[in-house]
Amino acid sequence: MTIKPEPPSRGRPRDPSIDAMVLETTRELLSEEGFAATTVQEISRRSGVHPPAIYRRWPSRLALIEDAAFSDLGEVAVRPTGDLARDLRRFVRAYARALSGPAARAAMPGLVASHQSDATTPPEEWIHLSLRPQFYAILAAAPGDVDPDVDPDRVFDLVLGAVLAGILVPAIAQRRNHVDSAVELLVRLLRPAVPARRQATGS
Amino acid sequence: MTIKPEPPSRGRPRDPSIDAMVLETTRELLSEEGFAATTVQEISRRSGVHPPAIYRRWPSRLALIEDAAFSDLGEVAVRPTGDLARDLRRFVRAYARALSGPAARAAMPGLVASHQSDATTPPEEWIHLSLRPQFYAILAAAPGDVDPDVDPDRVFDLVLGAVLAGILVPAIAQRRNHVDSAVELLVRLLRPAVPARRQATGS
Repeated sequence: MTIKPEPPSRGRPRDPSIDAMVLETTRELLSEEGFAATTVQEISRRSGVHPPAIYRRWPSRLALIEDAAFSDLGEVAVRPTGDLARDLRRFVRAYARALSGPAARAAMPGLVASHQSDATTPPEEWIHLSLRPQFYAILAAAPGDVDPDVDPDRVFDLVLGAVLAGILVPAIAQRRNHVDSAVELLVRLLRPAVPARRQATGS
Repeated sequence: MTIKPEPPSRGRPRDPSIDAMVLETTRELLSEEGFAATTVQEISRRSGVHPPAIYRRWPSRLALIEDAAFSDLGEVAVRPTGDLARDLRRFVRAYARALSGPAARAAMPGLVASHQSDATTPPEEWIHLSLRPQFYAILAAAPGDVDPDVDPDRVFDLVLGAVLAGILVPAIAQRRNHVDSAVELLVRLLRPAVPARRQATGS
């Protein structure tokens, strides 16, 4: 592997923006060169941040890639309004969008392979757990539309599955309204067997 | 890349069992060495089948890997009994099992990456379509338990998503009863809003 000369313009920032720069470089590399080429050495070369400084911030290459590829998951913030269908639609759309960017798509197969062969990342941190609380809040805001007998945890697993299938299976991804159809089914699934809303509002 | 000497014992069979031998060798390679190492050259070396003979049977390395890794999908054969919950449980379990073997797991990330970067495989053939008809037959055998307003195609997408999530997301895979929980939700989802079974049987 040849090391190309470092672009002289960038310099070596020593401030907190190093994190942002490393993450951005990692996303660029993932999108442009793919998972295998996204090494700490190459991230260091492109960003001008030395490997020890990178490893001070992330325990491993995989942790850095996960952080960079799925950073949009941190931006998903759906404030529940009590309209279950609408809130879920916004939530699942934002969730799917956060996993559909070029860096996330490029990283996903490599991360899947790594998680299968080596369980160093705590499994709860892989992709989905950070968004569970928002899902629960959306359900809690529409109690009349949610059957208490349905385990929200398992419904969330279905949400995650629908999102993954929409990204990984071209035949599903190609349907424009895949997410909205899935949400429609989820709303139906959550609905109380005997319509409780009418009883609750007394109308 | 060095070419190791070919094991002399195997010979070069010229009969129809070549297909089976190539597929078996491909599965072995996937399980033992991983997706990247499963090249036509290496399959040829291990099986003793020349590359032209391999390419006469499969148009590409990826087509061969898909065929080998997901061959168990062809074994999924659930005959509907009319008991929706039971039939679906058998179906989804068999489906998940067929995608969970070591060769399928090893192939999945590489195939996902290939399908994302290059759409040479018709998208309808990737993983799931071959099993749709069985799913429809199961629903058709239990008409009283299936709301005609629910689009079975979209429910099948949820099945596929649940299966994929159970394989790709360790936090979900680790739950022993993940598949059964998903099936429970699917049965609930399919259920007619007003119980139609009682009307249909007249009991």
